[in-house]
Amino acid sequence: MENGSLKKWRFQGNKALTTSSGFTVRAVLDSLRENLNVNDPRPTIPLGHGDPSAFPCFRTATEAEDAIVDAIRSAKYNHYPPTAGLLPARRAVAEYLNRDLPYKLSPDDVFLTLGCIQAIEVILTSLTHPGANILFPRPGFPYYESLAAHIHLEVRHFDLLPEKGWEVDLDAVEALVDENTVAMVIVNPGNPCGSVYTRQHLQKDAEIYLKTARNLGILVIADEVYEHLAFGSTPYVPMGVFGSIVPVVTLGSISKRWIVPGWRLGWVIADSIKGFLNISSDPITFVQGALPQILEKTKEGFFSKIIDILRKDSDIGYDKITEIPCITCPNKPEGGMFMMVKLNVSLLEGINDDMDFALQLAKEESVVVLPGIAVGMKNWLRVTFAIDPSMLEEGFERMKSFCQRHAKKQ
Amino acid sequence: MENGSLKKWRFQGNKALTTSSGFTVRAVLDSLRENLNVNDPRPTIPLGHGDPSAFPCFRTATEAEDAIVDAIRSAKYNHYPPTAGLLPARRAVAEYLNRDLPYKLSPDDVFLTLGCIQAIEVILTSLTHPGANILFPRPGFPYYESLAAHIHLEVRHFDLLPEKGWEVDLDAVEALVDENTVAMVIVNPGNPCGSVYTRQHLQKDAEIYLKTARNLGILVIADEVYEHLAFGSTPYVPMGVFGSIVPVVTLGSISKRWIVPGWRLGWVIADSIKGFLNISSDPITFVQGALPQILEKTKEGFFSKIIDILRKDSDIGYDKITEIPCITCPNKPEGGMFMMVKLNVSLLEGINDDMDFALQLAKEESVVVLPGIAVGMKNWLRVTFAIDPSMLEEGFERMKSFCQRHAKKQ
Repeated sequence: MENGSLKKWRFQGNKALTTSSGFTVRAVLDSLRENLNVNDPRPTIPLGHGDPSAFPCFRTATEAEDAIVDAIRSAKYNHYPPTAGLLPARRAVAEYLNRDLPYKLSPDDVFLTLGCIQAIEVILTSLTHPGANILFPRPGFPYYESLAAHIHLEVRHFDLLPEKGWEVDLDAVEALVDENTVAMVIVNPGNPCGSVYTRQHLQKDAEIYLKTARNLGILVIADEVYEHLAFGSTPYVPMGVFGSIVPVVTLGSISKRWIVPGWRLGWVIADSIKGFLNISSDPITFVQGALPQILEKTKEGFFSKIIDILRKDSDIGYDKITEIPCITCPNKPEGGMFMMVKLNVSLLEGINDDMDFALQLAKEESVVVLPGIAVGMKNWLRVTFAIDPSMLEEGFERMKSFCQRHAKKQ
Repeated sequence: MENGSLKKWRFQGNKALTTSSGFTVRAVLDSLRENLNVNDPRPTIPLGHGDPSAFPCFRTATEAEDAIVDAIRSAKYNHYPPTAGLLPARRAVAEYLNRDLPYKLSPDDVFLTLGCIQAIEVILTSLTHPGANILFPRPGFPYYESLAAHIHLEVRHFDLLPEKGWEVDLDAVEALVDENTVAMVIVNPGNPCGSVYTRQHLQKDAEIYLKTARNLGILVIADEVYEHLAFGSTPYVPMGVFGSIVPVVTLGSISKRWIVPGWRLGWVIADSIKGFLNISSDPITFVQGALPQILEKTKEGFFSKIIDILRKDSDIGYDKITEIPCITCPNKPEGGMFMMVKLNVSLLEGINDDMDFALQLAKEESVVVLPGIAVGMKNWLRVTFAIDPSMLEEGFERMKSFCQRHAKKQ
């Protein structure tokens, strides 16, 4: 453009934005990608972010594709999307979630959002007020931190305990809550830990909640974007089953279970958030139009195939890690698409920390993993296993060579 | 949900949101819809908002539908959308806009957004800083005001002059600009005025800009969401043709020309806004994937058919208004989808103002029009003519009966 860079005009940029977006996984991954060696003939192995949709084995259900095509061909869904979502789509989400709940959601409880990302934005923005704080798990999903900074919501972290299968440190929660706490966030199945919480643990969360938080009137935000992606021994239980004793706001999406993050269709199960939705964007109308068909018609075979691949992937990752001395995985993932891997830098030469490890690994082996620091855990790595199984194997082989090459001489 | 209303918990809602979203057209239209008489057997005639996609005569181009179906069936676009948009989609937008520009945009100048709404959000949020102000036209598109309030950006209004075909009051602009002004917004073709600015007027805007604003380094934000929807004697000229003498940020979308607002695909032509995009949502990947085909393959016949219907609609509206004494239209619309109609309440009995008129009209005649106050013009009405022509005729007939019934006895 002839006027060239806007920088010469009064386009300083909003500095608050630069700061808050500095935390995003996207920004860290962008810098890792810049470090890749363009001359490496081998394909880059993307273990840094959770989007398996590019792999043919993770292609979405035919029923979901058909539903979109039908919606487009009907020409009934080209109009502006309504604020909370199309009624049949909201009804379909309520019915879909009701399969696992002891009570009945109504369409009025459902607000459709642009993926789970906007669901997080909607609920956090609706809750914040001057002086408010919120409790996030560590490690967690960095978008939460980034958004909280942007809307000036104070963040307090409670740890997830690797020695206890990444369960919530309930004592920490009790100590952190005060009269300005608006909510605590529980991510289950876990990102980035691959944990699936037992009904007992969720119940304990609910009980500690009753003991401390209820009197203060805070919410539990249950981030269930990985809902039903459980492939270990622990079955997935939605936090909503305790909805009669604690106030739960559930966040979900078709992104993960249907492997269609690019369709940007999520939901918040709550009320009182319409004020914010009125000034924000809505999910594409024809994806909403397709939603009832997607949720109702997708065959069980599609879901079980995906679960089988994820289980196989998690086995591969867990086994391969045992062959690499400088990394350990304290808990075999049972759900979701990620595992947290502990890095022992003292066994490595010339590698100072997780960021350093990720940068050099990208450069030398064309393998992208996320440094743990990006999710609040220094000297850990967040690794997605949700890619093509043979490529995952290759990724860990390369990581093994890398670690051997950089091993400290004994 | 068993925990019932969240209001009993600490869910006070973010009060700033309620205030800012109170301004939206959506909120006003919702209250008008609540006023409709459910027992009226006649269909409601929606002249309040600009979305003709529900009418068969405004069905989008087959080429556009085909492009979406092809993108979905390819399974190549289920992944997370990249920050600024898919490269082929950005390239297609650059080439599409280059047809009308004396210089060449590159794909790097193009950022894809969730409709033009997010384009507005992105550019305003990127520009704001403490103490900043921005110049908006009056009447205007209320989302601008709503968003500015939300991000604490001070708004200053310059008038559009009905006696001069809704041209910008250039003297007012000159008087309003100061060292904290970050940008002025020009909407062309006009919402809500149906005006299409001549090359001469745009050039005068550019010149006044050079005289006052350039020294201060502010931007012109050219909202061209209605680009190419010009059906009068004035041809559409994008502000970007003056891009070599003034810094122009252009906002656009496929929503209006292709009649697909629900597809939520817009663009900002600018740079330096990546920081904000990193923490906001992106347009659906497969709509981006379909974009090159949509922009390149849509046949001229589709566009000219739509233009013909809009011209016919504008004729109908303009003629019908001359039959109704209490309303006048100072300028026949030449573009876009709206006309501003002046209301003379002194000729009516028991109707105090435009809001009152709109509420009673909805109740008695099942016709929805937007009170001018929602776009900054008390005792005007904003009327969309972009609906099925026979329905438009019927809408004005009902308005005529309404005005006759409420006419002040001489």
